[in-house]
Amino acid sequence: MDTGCTLWFTGMSGSGKSTVSSLLAARLREMGKKVELLDGDVVRTHLCRGLGFTREDREENIRRLGFLCELLTRNGVIAVVAAISPYRGCRDEVRKRVSQFVEIYMQCPLEVLIERDVKGLYKRALAGEIPLFTGISDPYEAPAAAEIVIDSASESAQDGVDRILCRLLELGVVSREQVLATSN
Amino acid sequence: MDTGCTLWFTGMSGSGKSTVSSLLAARLREMGKKVELLDGDVVRTHLCRGLGFTREDREENIRRLGFLCELLTRNGVIAVVAAISPYRGCRDEVRKRVSQFVEIYMQCPLEVLIERDVKGLYKRALAGEIPLFTGISDPYEAPAAAEIVIDSASESAQDGVDRILCRLLELGVVSREQVLATSN
Repeated sequence: MDTGCTLWFTGMSGSGKSTVSSLLAARLREMGKKVELLDGDVVRTHLCRGLGFTREDREENIRRLGFLCELLTRNGVIAVVAAISPYRGCRDEVRKRVSQFVEIYMQCPLEVLIERDVKGLYKRALAGEIPLFTGISDPYEAPAAAEIVIDSASESAQDGVDRILCRLLELGVVSREQVLATSN
Repeated sequence: MDTGCTLWFTGMSGSGKSTVSSLLAARLREMGKKVELLDGDVVRTHLCRGLGFTREDREENIRRLGFLCELLTRNGVIAVVAAISPYRGCRDEVRKRVSQFVEIYMQCPLEVLIERDVKGLYKRALAGEIPLFTGISDPYEAPAAAEIVIDSASESAQDGVDRILCRLLELGVVSREQVLATSN
């Protein structure tokens, strides 16, 4: 059976979670792997309709995602999660339940995020228009010991993907041949 | 890759969903299949905390279960659902989204269910102590064209399992060898 795992991207809005996770998912699919990409939107639509952005609701959101990852991972699927998931304790709870859990912290200085502000959300949050906005008016608890830290202010998405693949090689989730066959 | 499918048990409380579905799941595991048994309790704990028994909440419950089945099935897992799931339209929505969907209707006359009343729920529901109780104070919409109908008042759980396995043979989910090797 294929070896499943959960690749959990955490980081503030605009830190590059979607970019790196979708590049990674595409590469893994190219290798013939079974992959499910679960981003915040997918989950809010299908699992968490009605939940908001309070601490309690965000935690419930993460727990449901964690349950899904547990089921997928033990059945040989690579679950790729891209969700802000701001609370350390809650991510660690998922870590305990999933057999192969790789936490990927998309690190980026707040100044850079505010400067980029692709979706214009930071501007609105700083103006007080978005309550409970992670990093501005709501906490973000960075991982204490993430397996992989990607500094999206200085590292390319491609380099990030390559480093994650190295880790997956060590875990036996992908083979050297698969990595080489899909690199260009 | 293994062929996944969703085996969806529907029926009123006490109709035998848990009995037949757990017997079936055990048999499929014996064959070396990847199986996830999702009963109402698992789902209420992990996916639907906070949802109640109004029509809207029950529908949302089924939709989430359906999403889970969709992910598992397309990754080669046999998802076995045992949930009252009283609304036909909602079950049919899931059917549309899942590639191999087998609906199993646990049919049982209400008189027999009231007579059995293993958990004492019908007595309480008839006394008006449980609001929105399916079959008594809330509707149960029987399937119009379930793939399999099991009359639990007259058919044994083992016979029911055997008939479901015949269907899974036709669908290519299990092989003749696997069925024979695990029958006794």
